[in-house]
Amino acid sequence: MLMRTGLLLIPALLATLSVRAELVSKTVEYKQGDTVLEGYSVYDNATQGKRPGVLVVHQWQGLGAYEKKRAEMVAGLGYNVLAVDIYGKGIRPDNPRDAGAEAGKFKDNRPLLRARVRAGLDVLTRHELTDLKRIAAIGYCFGGTTVLELARSGADLAGVVSFHGGLSSPTPGDAKNIKAKVLALHGADDPFVPAAEVAAFEDEMRQGRVDWQLIAYGGAVHSFTHWDAGSDSSRGAAYNERADKRSWEAMKPFFAELFK
Amino acid sequence: MLMRTGLLLIPALLATLSVRAELVSKTVEYKQGDTVLEGYSVYDNATQGKRPGVLVVHQWQGLGAYEKKRAEMVAGLGYNVLAVDIYGKGIRPDNPRDAGAEAGKFKDNRPLLRARVRAGLDVLTRHELTDLKRIAAIGYCFGGTTVLELARSGADLAGVVSFHGGLSSPTPGDAKNIKAKVLALHGADDPFVPAAEVAAFEDEMRQGRVDWQLIAYGGAVHSFTHWDAGSDSSRGAAYNERADKRSWEAMKPFFAELFK
Repeated sequence: MLMRTGLLLIPALLATLSVRAELVSKTVEYKQGDTVLEGYSVYDNATQGKRPGVLVVHQWQGLGAYEKKRAEMVAGLGYNVLAVDIYGKGIRPDNPRDAGAEAGKFKDNRPLLRARVRAGLDVLTRHELTDLKRIAAIGYCFGGTTVLELARSGADLAGVVSFHGGLSSPTPGDAKNIKAKVLALHGADDPFVPAAEVAAFEDEMRQGRVDWQLIAYGGAVHSFTHWDAGSDSSRGAAYNERADKRSWEAMKPFFAELFK
Repeated sequence: MLMRTGLLLIPALLATLSVRAELVSKTVEYKQGDTVLEGYSVYDNATQGKRPGVLVVHQWQGLGAYEKKRAEMVAGLGYNVLAVDIYGKGIRPDNPRDAGAEAGKFKDNRPLLRARVRAGLDVLTRHELTDLKRIAAIGYCFGGTTVLELARSGADLAGVVSFHGGLSSPTPGDAKNIKAKVLALHGADDPFVPAAEVAAFEDEMRQGRVDWQLIAYGGAVHSFTHWDAGSDSSRGAAYNERADKRSWEAMKPFFAELFK
């Protein structure tokens, strides 16, 4: 026995009650040690008062238009969002060689990576609209690795989501520190995150008794959510609309569970 | 810029518009060859007219109370449901030894398994409420294996969902026949569906160029959706509320995508 409601009958009434909402965004300067970082803060003023906070962490080219758009999409879901800067103000490598070198500095220095993302988390937690008991972090590629590293640091987060992030850890024993629920969204054909790395990650999560899930998207390679990554999967990185939409939809019930 | 609606302001109006809905169910006898099968048909009369059809396939003990409850839950989502019978009327093994033997007959005879589930699909497609362009199949354990086998047979389905089903195939080349989108929901610690079997399945899907996804639920073992499976994961099969709820929630957007 179920109760059903006749929602379809009342569009006219709903229209008269609708409210125009706007995204409120600004650039935010902050520091980690002596390094100046430049993030992007955004929320939707349709929601009043405190709300869950979500950190968004960039890909290997640094915080750019893509991550700002994602931050706005997350803000549109009703969250207070900070897209962080790991590299430093003005450091936005525009070619693969420089991007790889910059990302490599942090992949090879996890304590520094943790400190940089932690500085962003501090900014988010100090924001007046952030509900301190409901905070999550998501990241793309390099940012996926980063949010996992933030979780491994023992940060007090409800959850983290990695989109096509690298899953390896130089210190897998740190998984025991993880308080966040972990959702890894993975392209099943991603040559940059091969099967052995996925298996090691699963084992790391298992050994650490983490609350984890991993979704493998068939046919998807690296960067599957990135609109500008092209469509040639043979290059190992390409946009995949199906996996992009599915992974975005998978994030929503995960957030609903974290923030309930 | 988003439009928001003031839904919270109008509960009184909604209440006056609500409709009392009921599940309409019946036992259905049908045949495959000379074998009489006994399925369970259920739909929700809150919805009018044709709707997507969903086949539900049982675990190794045959169609019982668990599968009927699942069928009702799926019917409650607005679909026309048939819980099929693979074993035959009255064949409902009530202990692991007999259940294993019965399931084994079909796992070792995939053509027969395909014929049995196909007979159920025929009953569903003949039902006046089934929208023939929108049909899916879901199955639990043995039933997960069965819906994958149905897909491998080339059945004209929008999609299939396996909940903790066995993923192996004696004829992986048949994946090229698959028209259905495939969603496999897997307990990451399921000893009955080990990592090598998952890897072989993923490779089968990849080679067959199937539209597939697999979700691995950390900490979940076999039977993770089965309320009566107990809570002792060390036995290899146990209920896991978290994975149960997450997998149910993962099915919904999959159906939404299939049936849009």
